[in-house]
Amino acid sequence: MEDGLVEAIIEPHQGQENQRHIPTDRPALFASESAGGAKWRVDAYQLISYEVSLCAGLLDPADPTLATAGSVASESPRRLVVVDAQVNALYGARIRQYFSARAIAYELCVINAHERVKTMDSVFRIVSSMDGFGVVRRREPVIAIGGGVLTDLVGLAASLYRRSTPYVRVPTTLIGMVDAGIGAKTGVNFRQHKNRLGSYHPSAVTLVDPTFLGTLSPRHVRNGLAEVLKIALIKDVELFELLAKHGARLVSERMQYVGSADDGSAADEVLRRSILGMLEELQPNLWEHQLQRLVDYGHSFSPTIEMAALPELLHGEAVSLDMALSVVLAHSRGMLSATDLDRALGVLRDLELPTWHRVCTPQLLASALADTVKHRDGQQLLPLTAGIGAARFVNDIAADELDQALAVLTDDAAFTGAGGQHG
Amino acid sequence: MEDGLVEAIIEPHQGQENQRHIPTDRPALFASESAGGAKWRVDAYQLISYEVSLCAGLLDPADPTLATAGSVASESPRRLVVVDAQVNALYGARIRQYFSARAIAYELCVINAHERVKTMDSVFRIVSSMDGFGVVRRREPVIAIGGGVLTDLVGLAASLYRRSTPYVRVPTTLIGMVDAGIGAKTGVNFRQHKNRLGSYHPSAVTLVDPTFLGTLSPRHVRNGLAEVLKIALIKDVELFELLAKHGARLVSERMQYVGSADDGSAADEVLRRSILGMLEELQPNLWEHQLQRLVDYGHSFSPTIEMAALPELLHGEAVSLDMALSVVLAHSRGMLSATDLDRALGVLRDLELPTWHRVCTPQLLASALADTVKHRDGQQLLPLTAGIGAARFVNDIAADELDQALAVLTDDAAFTGAGGQHG
Repeated sequence: MEDGLVEAIIEPHQGQENQRHIPTDRPALFASESAGGAKWRVDAYQLISYEVSLCAGLLDPADPTLATAGSVASESPRRLVVVDAQVNALYGARIRQYFSARAIAYELCVINAHERVKTMDSVFRIVSSMDGFGVVRRREPVIAIGGGVLTDLVGLAASLYRRSTPYVRVPTTLIGMVDAGIGAKTGVNFRQHKNRLGSYHPSAVTLVDPTFLGTLSPRHVRNGLAEVLKIALIKDVELFELLAKHGARLVSERMQYVGSADDGSAADEVLRRSILGMLEELQPNLWEHQLQRLVDYGHSFSPTIEMAALPELLHGEAVSLDMALSVVLAHSRGMLSATDLDRALGVLRDLELPTWHRVCTPQLLASALADTVKHRDGQQLLPLTAGIGAARFVNDIAADELDQALAVLTDDAAFTGAGGQHG
Repeated sequence: MEDGLVEAIIEPHQGQENQRHIPTDRPALFASESAGGAKWRVDAYQLISYEVSLCAGLLDPADPTLATAGSVASESPRRLVVVDAQVNALYGARIRQYFSARAIAYELCVINAHERVKTMDSVFRIVSSMDGFGVVRRREPVIAIGGGVLTDLVGLAASLYRRSTPYVRVPTTLIGMVDAGIGAKTGVNFRQHKNRLGSYHPSAVTLVDPTFLGTLSPRHVRNGLAEVLKIALIKDVELFELLAKHGARLVSERMQYVGSADDGSAADEVLRRSILGMLEELQPNLWEHQLQRLVDYGHSFSPTIEMAALPELLHGEAVSLDMALSVVLAHSRGMLSATDLDRALGVLRDLELPTWHRVCTPQLLASALADTVKHRDGQQLLPLTAGIGAARFVNDIAADELDQALAVLTDDAAFTGAGGQHG
């Protein structure tokens, strides 16, 4: 442990902790036999351990972090590097220089990753590269450099290849750094269903280098701030205040000035609070055995909205539409004051995130909720804000309640002209 | 616990037990932060628990076992049932009667499952059925009825669908009952590589009904006995004696008379010993964190052999070729006496399992070993018998040693006419 570091041990949530339930006195293999039949039960525990590091300057050839992440040192290191096409255009030369300078036998696989090609065919392209490169089972983690779609695709390929091979994530978008790139989920769309196929397979290490955000478009910064706002609304009122105060500037500055907390930009604190908040929610429920998940906030209607509007809406924009609906629903139930409703919608507008979109019809929202109920094993389990920074689950949203909430946002959009614009 | 049942608690192997390594005093989420960077580590434990039951008469409408396996009782139960085409031809009417009689809203998805269509396309067919049926996330386990290919396909589909949905396996072949249907692995072939893509996702319950074997072809009974012989050779000399004494009769009787241990057919004991032996090996190493696996016996050269000979060899036949090679290698290293070598090859011949095949060239075996070394993270980790019923791992099989072992079997086949025949 280096000097000057602040260590914190975060306790799992009450009632969700999985460690306390490990019945260590239970036999691992239990057999009961009789003349007429027999029964065996197999119990096995898997420990999944992964790291998220915030560290600038990853592509500096003097920095061994990226070269050594997720594996033991090797005399003749080899790496397959899967890079998003846009990242390759911006950083390809530096990525090549980095691996060459560190004497790593590498191969680059460039994927034009976006939501419409978030499919098994793209996973097969990555698997074919792994196969061609001859990835060894444990010692040659595949390195994924790109946004959330790219890291989800590489994650699923790595999960399936030899039934799981290690990989390393380098998210280059804000949404990747605070959401897609730091959890356990991988996934692809199937038919019209968002992330219908996937696995739980976190990368051994995620390296978050905020300097990548310097080349991100403002729209994609906003897209990431939507997931930051989600964490703020459900559990972190201070994070909400930071967004309310600095949101527009974080976009225009592209979240730079990370690492210097006293410059007033707040970027550093926003990033740290978002990552920690997300990991706190994921850790006790990594495999989603508990289907009542706070981080599903903004993700009850949005999967269907996003797929219906494809390719128009980014993921965070669809989540914003869902959050707008959710705060109106919470207000109509008396769970959120009029002031807090206005503040929440105000932050969405400050961030130029949509609060309404023409695909959001009563019919679409009803079918979105029906699909989510299947996904939550027959219940709505809809998280709604109980004041800003806290949340409760509801199970009884009625069709007319949903229609009325939508009408509020539709009228509002007609009046203010909000919704659907992309900076 | 019913009267008359014998309970046994099986201790995990020395040195492989995973439970004793659970560091319960380690924090679940650990954070260290400084001005320049931050690091978070997420630890999470997953408990996987599954059952294997030996129970005859599953399709008797009076027996609730199949209808209730893997789920809580429901007022309006629904099940998607994925059935192999051959099983459907033989048992389809009884399967329909069973679910109708038990008032379960079911749908049958019939798949012509065999090694050449053990591909992602077949998985997609099953996933589409799941999607069309609208499988709810946790309460409606998909039921898979068929051989090892069918249960592997359904297992992967269930693993990927919503990132894991439960399923139930009803293996109808012997190899399914003692091997493919009772472990955690799912998989499909990719390009020329056997099971290159897959996951670890055991069914909640596997129901082993040996009466299905009554309609199995002798060739497929032999195919399953090859995996039984594997367990016998590496760890169970008594099982080996049973095969040596009763092997041919087990084939002609199709493993019937299970449940009446004193009739001398030995089928019941062979089935129980094989299942228990396999589960004992799998439990402490369900996710293959340890790549030194006894159950890889007969599976070092066979994946490449099987794919090269496709569709000629069944899985167990390819495993037999590998086991023949392995006993010759063990003998040449002084690990197996001449008598035991003859006995092992004798059982293979009694069972009419092949000991040589024309695709087994020195070149093919060399490339098979090279691929296996990648799969075992850079080492051979080749299990070889150390006497019958015990095994050791070797890491230094040389090319000429392999060539000589092959030559022994080639000469032998030329002399006896053995190898390649299928009853």
